[in-house]
This record gives sequence, C-alpha cells and structure tokens, in this order.
Amino acid sequence: MPSIFTKIVNGEIPAYKIYEDDTVLAFLDIHPETKGHTLVIPKKEVDKIYDLDDATYDSLMHVAKKLAVHMEQKLGHRTLWKIIGTDVPHAHIHLMPQDDNWQYGKTLELTPEEFEEIRSKLEYK
Amino acid sequence: MPSIFTKIVNGEIPAYKIYEDDTVLAFLDIHPETKGHTLVIPKKEVDKIYDLDDATYDSLMHVAKKLAVHMEQKLGHRTLWKIIGTDVPHAHIHLMPQDDNWQYGKTLELTPEEFEEIRSKLEYK
Repeated sequence: MPSIFTKIVNGEIPAYKIYEDDTVLAFLDIHPETKGHTLVIPKKEVDKIYDLDDATYDSLMHVAKKLAVHMEQKLGHRTLWKIIGTDVPHAHIHLMPQDDNWQYGKTLELTPEEFEEIRSKLEYK
Repeated sequence: MPSIFTKIVNGEIPAYKIYEDDTVLAFLDIHPETKGHTLVIPKKEVDKIYDLDDATYDSLMHVAKKLAVHMEQKLGHRTLWKIIGTDVPHAHIHLMPQDDNWQYGKTLELTPEEFEEIRSKLEYK
C-alpha cells in the first residue's frame, strides 16, 4: 500500500506544498511542533533515508539545505533538522524553525487559514 | 576562540574517533543518549550546517549516509539523525542508534572501556 506521503505526491491527499521538483517535495507538517515545521521528502518511496540511491539522496539534501536557509530568512529563526522516520515508512526530513514558543513534542493546533498563511510565506520557487 | 570540535580536529582534545578524512570527522558523543551515539562534523568550523559551502556539505552528508548504514549493520538498530547544533557552534550531525533502552534526553554514563569497545566496533575505514 502506498505511504501517505506517496498519496500526497500523487495528489490523492492535499498538502500545503512549499517546494516541488521532479525528485523532491516539501510541504508543511500537518502536526507541527513549531510554526513552519516542514517535511522534505523524496518522491520515491523508500523507508530509510540512508537507503536512498545516491542521486536521490543528493537531490533531497540539496533541497533541504536551500529550504533551511530560506526558512531562516523568512521566519527569523534557526532551522533545526530531524530525521526520525519511524512514524511514516517513507524517508522524510523535518525542518523546524527554532522559535521561542516551541514546546518539544507538543503539536500546535493551526487553522487552515494559518497553514495557508505560513505556506504562502515559505513557498520557494 | 576555536570550538571544542576544532580542538578535537586539531588533536588538542581526545575523542573516540570512528571515521576521518580530509574534510569530515566522526567520533562518539561523550554525552550519549544511546550506545553508539555519534557526531559527524566538517573539519571546517561553521556554525550552521546550511551555511557550509556546497562541497563540504556534500562530503559531510555522504559520510553521514555511509555511517548510518554502517552503524545499523554493526548495531542492529535503525539510525536516527538530529541536526540541532545550538550547544556547540560548529555544525554537527547526531547519528543515534534507536535501541530499545533509549530514554529521550537522558545521557548514558559509560566507562572509558565501554566507549572504546563501541568505538572499535563502529570504526569505519
């Protein structure tokens, strides 16, 4: 069965997308710990990031780097990274703005309007 | 003042090294959360990983990928990654074996003998 992320890649499930190219997709985490919490994924469905082929891994890491810089510029907070990946078996990088209100492990409740506001601020082309 | 990691790179402070090349160094975290908890750093002292020049960033990420695979093979646990970096202002990737005894945020107390045993098991050439 395809992962929930593959369904997002295929457009079967909506997402607040901030970046997309042929290999990589980035969108807001729907259970954010901090405003702007973003997931960066390879479109290819592979569980562990370190099992990706080198070309896909490089593309993913290059996008993560660009987005981390972009997010800091847009939000004014250092960008932290986590690659845990035990919740969804499809490799993903969490990029998380380190804002002062972050309560580790606690999910923010945001309205669709708030998600869209963050998405449009972070959109990267 | 050079970072504590630069002092390790320069050999002024000892470390349980598991990998080294011209650009990248990896060694055991002296305050491990899990057995095998490793730090992968660029030898160049740059605070944020996303401010590294692209060549150094690529080298760092390639080593992290190889070591993550290697650690899983040697220890039998999935390797998790964190890039937080607010403790030492010198970019570093935490690679952490997800073993069952991991208590998040709690540091293990290991003897030098235990560190050396893990180091020799994880050494990567």
